[in-house]
Amino acid sequence: MKKKCDLLIHNAQLITCADNGSEFGLVEQGAVACDQGKIVWMGASDQISAFAANTSIDANNNIVTPGLIDCHTHLVFAGSRANEFAMRLAGASYEAIAQAGGGILSTVKATRAACLEQLVESTCQRLAHLKSQGVMTVEIKSGYGLDFDSELKMLAAARAAGERMGMDVKTTLLAAHAIPPEFADDRPGYVSLICQEIIPHVAKHKLADAVDAFCEGIGFSVAETRQIFDAAARWGLPVKLHADQLSDLGGAGLVAEYGGLSADHIEYTSLNSVQKMAEHHTIATLLPYAFYALQETKKPPIKAFREWGIDMAIATDSNPGTAPTTNLLQCLHMACTQFGLTVEEAILGVTINAAKALGIDDEKGSIEVGKASQMVLWDTDQIADLVYWQGQTLVKQTFK
Amino acid sequence: MKKKCDLLIHNAQLITCADNGSEFGLVEQGAVACDQGKIVWMGASDQISAFAANTSIDANNNIVTPGLIDCHTHLVFAGSRANEFAMRLAGASYEAIAQAGGGILSTVKATRAACLEQLVESTCQRLAHLKSQGVMTVEIKSGYGLDFDSELKMLAAARAAGERMGMDVKTTLLAAHAIPPEFADDRPGYVSLICQEIIPHVAKHKLADAVDAFCEGIGFSVAETRQIFDAAARWGLPVKLHADQLSDLGGAGLVAEYGGLSADHIEYTSLNSVQKMAEHHTIATLLPYAFYALQETKKPPIKAFREWGIDMAIATDSNPGTAPTTNLLQCLHMACTQFGLTVEEAILGVTINAAKALGIDDEKGSIEVGKASQMVLWDTDQIADLVYWQGQTLVKQTFK
Ligand SMILES: [Zn+2]
Ligand SMILES: [Zn+2]
Repeated sequence: MKKKCDLLIHNAQLITCADNGSEFGLVEQGAVACDQGKIVWMGASDQISAFAANTSIDANNNIVTPGLIDCHTHLVFAGSRANEFAMRLAGASYEAIAQAGGGILSTVKATRAACLEQLVESTCQRLAHLKSQGVMTVEIKSGYGLDFDSELKMLAAARAAGERMGMDVKTTLLAAHAIPPEFADDRPGYVSLICQEIIPHVAKHKLADAVDAFCEGIGFSVAETRQIFDAAARWGLPVKLHADQLSDLGGAGLVAEYGGLSADHIEYTSLNSVQKMAEHHTIATLLPYAFYALQETKKPPIKAFREWGIDMAIATDSNPGTAPTTNLLQCLHMACTQFGLTVEEAILGVTINAAKALGIDDEKGSIEVGKASQMVLWDTDQIADLVYWQGQTLVKQTFK
Repeated sequence: MKKKCDLLIHNAQLITCADNGSEFGLVEQGAVACDQGKIVWMGASDQISAFAANTSIDANNNIVTPGLIDCHTHLVFAGSRANEFAMRLAGASYEAIAQAGGGILSTVKATRAACLEQLVESTCQRLAHLKSQGVMTVEIKSGYGLDFDSELKMLAAARAAGERMGMDVKTTLLAAHAIPPEFADDRPGYVSLICQEIIPHVAKHKLADAVDAFCEGIGFSVAETRQIFDAAARWGLPVKLHADQLSDLGGAGLVAEYGGLSADHIEYTSLNSVQKMAEHHTIATLLPYAFYALQETKKPPIKAFREWGIDMAIATDSNPGTAPTTNLLQCLHMACTQFGLTVEEAILGVTINAAKALGIDDEKGSIEVGKASQMVLWDTDQIADLVYWQGQTLVKQTFK
């Protein structure tokens, strides 16, 4: 008797992204059976006669990948920074832009003023573009609220938008993104608010999946970041960090010491920190669009990450200031072009390694029995096409 | 009695791109009337009661621009270079890539082997992506045929694809793109073929709108380029040039001397050539995606172009080797980010200045009475949004 299943995909080049010894975890002439939202069987296409599927898809030897994952975004925000972008290019000074209401605080102001529904709607539009590229899971950070209510509003908007779009959203509390104006003369007061009020509330009510901070000369110090990480640890929340983007404060090493999920940006990361990342299996999350948009020249230490066996993820960093994009595939091309990643590293960076950066690699990021049945069928038989040519979407069909 | 017209757009921020003294040629609260494919009237929205239009569009104070123009592409080609891209990133040597069938000659081989219909179909797919961004006019070069029949086949495919997509295609003969394998030991023979057979035939039968060459150390010399330009002049075809991309051979000055339409790439262009371009009103066509993809560091002399009043166009350079993209709006962002163009310069670069680079500015590139009624209504009231955020298309409606 045949075994029943919901979905059967066969005659596919399965880019499993699993650690099966071949590049990309490739299984040629592969087939995969899914039932009740899980992958229940994987094998050779000539074995599918054992199954009776409700839906059967012939992939025509085209590529099938896991649903893509964008593991670092700031997708929830209100207002527009387009004018600031134009002013900067026209030569306006930092002061003139600030006076015209530019900078991160302009986004904070607009986000605080927006109602939940406005945030959900604009976030859905951004998610739609990611979805059209085969992205099924998106991490979204708070960090433009910078007060108790507004940070919670952002986290709620992120989850609501994910639900509305039928996408999985993981939320990250980034209250430590900037010092809000009302605490300009009282940094410790704001750090206390985060550690003693926001984190406990968020943890108790399970509103965020992780805690993040912007550890930088112009952001939060190492000592402040430690306070925030200590609070997260007390409340059982995993941490990640905006680390070593513009200078080396040892942020990547710091988040590794805390057993954090990922160190993100990491252009200036030292060998010392790389070693700590290796020791604690911290993921290196590369954000090549921000590197491009800021026209940075110091590249992340890719060679060291390879030598120390550190897994690399790639994300859009989508945000209105330094990465105004939702084009994840362009970011893959940039990771290859600017940082010299291989196509395999690029693909693993938005699948299994992005899943690791979110702590969800037990259920997502690869095509393996037991994982979620989230896959994309692409209109090409060459995996490199996903990264190489930036044109119309190659997504042919998505399965969820 | 009211005046009849086919189309009336009102309550618009008209980004006319005309030289009317305001930035972008902006007309606020503007209205435009079109009839029989031409713009017949422009004025204030409160004057539209004089017209009875078949179709009347309220732009809701959103942006209306001329149809965009991509004035430098190599959109017609067969085969894929995705594998070569992957090999290069994986560290393969130039020889290994050549042995695996990579490089421009692999595109030549595949393009020669393809039939007309195959070329038309793949070109249409690429044009579709440009069209979704509001692009209505596209220049397409030959240059992967490199023999009499194959160059003609490329030019025919370009025009047929434009027709099928309802887009205006201008064709450029770029037989002098590379030396074909069969002339490897006889460069003069190939230049003769171009000058004495291909150009005369193309001119007689009006198969191309211009003649181009790749003037570079690894391309055609100044002397060879002069021969080709002389032949084009004899046959009444305007010229343009791939100039000074990787070194300064004086190409931009050369094409200016010939009264050419545009000098393209021009990263290494000297002040001497800039002065010649100014004298002859040669357009400077910037190709920022190729600059990015090759990770070049020498930027075009934007300051000198501004000082000498040289109009700048921006194009994708879409091609399978050095600019694998059809994302023109990303190219605008790159022109701003990498080269420091203003948003106004970016927008003029894909409208009126791109029209000038194609010699069609008498009919296209701006919203002015007498020009073609090709316009785009965008889903934003901020022109900077077209350049700033790379996401879902903001095109709301196109008029043609
Ligand atoms: Zn970020
Ligand atoms: Zn070109």
